[in-house]
Amino acid sequence: MDFDHYYSNIDIFDLKTPFFKIMNTQLALKDIVKAKSRIDGVINETPVITSSLLNAWLGHTIYFKAEGFQKIGAFKARGASNTIAWLIENDLTPKHIVANSSGNHAQAVAWAAKRFNIPATIYMPAYASKVKIQATKAYGAEVILCQTRQEADALVKQTSEEKSIYWIPPYNHEQVICGQGTAAFEAIKAIGSVEAVFAPCGGGGLLSGSLIAAKGLSKTTQVIGAEPLMGNDAAESLRKNTIQHLTEAPKTLADGAMTLAVGDITFEYLKQLDGFYEITEEAIIYWTQWLTHLLKLRIEPTSALSMEAAFQWLQKQQQKQTVVIILSGANIDQETTKKIWENDCLTTEPYKR
Amino acid sequence: MDFDHYYSNIDIFDLKTPFFKIMNTQLALKDIVKAKSRIDGVINETPVITSSLLNAWLGHTIYFKAEGFQKIGAFKARGASNTIAWLIENDLTPKHIVANSSGNHAQAVAWAAKRFNIPATIYMPAYASKVKIQATKAYGAEVILCQTRQEADALVKQTSEEKSIYWIPPYNHEQVICGQGTAAFEAIKAIGSVEAVFAPCGGGGLLSGSLIAAKGLSKTTQVIGAEPLMGNDAAESLRKNTIQHLTEAPKTLADGAMTLAVGDITFEYLKQLDGFYEITEEAIIYWTQWLTHLLKLRIEPTSALSMEAAFQWLQKQQQKQTVVIILSGANIDQETTKKIWENDCLTTEPYKR
Repeated sequence: MDFDHYYSNIDIFDLKTPFFKIMNTQLALKDIVKAKSRIDGVINETPVITSSLLNAWLGHTIYFKAEGFQKIGAFKARGASNTIAWLIENDLTPKHIVANSSGNHAQAVAWAAKRFNIPATIYMPAYASKVKIQATKAYGAEVILCQTRQEADALVKQTSEEKSIYWIPPYNHEQVICGQGTAAFEAIKAIGSVEAVFAPCGGGGLLSGSLIAAKGLSKTTQVIGAEPLMGNDAAESLRKNTIQHLTEAPKTLADGAMTLAVGDITFEYLKQLDGFYEITEEAIIYWTQWLTHLLKLRIEPTSALSMEAAFQWLQKQQQKQTVVIILSGANIDQETTKKIWENDCLTTEPYKR
Repeated sequence: MDFDHYYSNIDIFDLKTPFFKIMNTQLALKDIVKAKSRIDGVINETPVITSSLLNAWLGHTIYFKAEGFQKIGAFKARGASNTIAWLIENDLTPKHIVANSSGNHAQAVAWAAKRFNIPATIYMPAYASKVKIQATKAYGAEVILCQTRQEADALVKQTSEEKSIYWIPPYNHEQVICGQGTAAFEAIKAIGSVEAVFAPCGGGGLLSGSLIAAKGLSKTTQVIGAEPLMGNDAAESLRKNTIQHLTEAPKTLADGAMTLAVGDITFEYLKQLDGFYEITEEAIIYWTQWLTHLLKLRIEPTSALSMEAAFQWLQKQQQKQTVVIILSGANIDQETTKKIWENDCLTTEPYKR
């Protein structure tokens, strides 16, 4: 398939190279810096915000990197645009770009392809929300609706066997990872230094990129992940030291973390995390409401994962900490919003929980 | 009452001065500029944002002044802080500040009083939402819960008869008006120039201030107001050329525009508006969802009023227009949020409406 053709390190993984060899090619801060300069002026340098009330309540300083203000409303724009810019930089500009996704990655690839004037086709399962299908079309991509996710996956693979067509996968790709890592990089640069970085885990792209950026800037910075307890394949994979696959999409409200399995590339980075939390749906609802209320932003439930992880981690700390939470994005449909706001969590302040 | 004592122009209105005399003392751009310099560094200069998708759909350029990022999450912080700063500037610093409100004004006075180290007491009706009572207390004010709004009104009047106590009313006060006007002033200065400014109408403070700022900067800029059709006392007042009073709080979702009547000061400015729209609850729900979705912000329903007014006004324009919409704030409780997201409006794009 053509994806291999363009992919610099694919041989290593095709040959099932042992871990030490992967370590040799491990991405480093310089790769994040390159990605950052590649996408400067293409993506938004999103604001870092804080809530003095929340800080006072919790006794720590929490910064939020608001990726809801990113192009397409989620961090995914970083990885997609970095990958295309990197292809162009290496004289590998494809004639056509394809992707398969039911969510933010679909929109990110549609937007980035248009930004670089390359036609794009996105294979989406028909069950994807109307709003997301609509947005993907609005960014100018051709959308092909498939009966199932499996059909979308098969079609994108088949299509990308054509040499001139490039498939941008959602997370298991070094340039996607480096792009996503620019969010943590920008945030830490803006803040100065932090004791810990928190990010949610779907396929592990954002978390891998955050790890490379944060550890590259300071080895003592902890990088901590979070995923829904209802879809805890990454936690299980880390416990068993081998990638675990869910058999069907978990029914979590955190739809950005529904991925069935992490990738072989991202898994190697996830193993290096300082902590990993499995978050209940109750906590996802609680923090989606509270972060919306305190920060005055549209907050997608996936963003609440890292807040609950930070909340639990901060409670164990003896000294005042400064941390950054990557808010993944702000794309939610009406149905999910309705579920989030069914009951009132705002009557119980975080310090009373 | 002491409010009179501190209030520069009160004599005029007490004597039922005819309109020409009021015109003589009319506030002007210089008063907005003074307010702006008084509260610089105290309030936030909020961002002006735009949605390229919405602009493409409607064929015009719409800027949004995001007062949800203002201190206390609403434009009300401007009027409250300007009033206190103006008192201090005129050696009239009170020993205590009082206010009566069930909403954003309560939080604004609590916050501003604390900011200037003056103790504050806020009289709130017991039916006010728990979240708003909680926030008012969190800003450091004493909160006295009253059985009814009438009791709160009576108590604040009684208390403010004491010379050293100052009552900051929610809208019918020149310095409150000038403070609110700094939002439109900042926005137009940032954008360059606009054909029209849209703001919601509760008691008319924001709209009066916006009118003074916009007309002061350019006489040809249109200033247009909007209020809920369910509580259209201002529209009725303008039609009958005399202030009309609602007998009970209207059951609109736009809780920032539930005011029973405009003030005698604000009414004189409202008469000078270029247009005024009465908005259905359906349109309030529609635009609260769509602005939340497109701008990735927490949007209070009151902010949707001006968007629908702009939408209707823009449809009548022959040429491409550049307008600014003042988003009043981002304070909503769970109950209102739940009502807003009951049904899906995101499946009908604005251009299809």
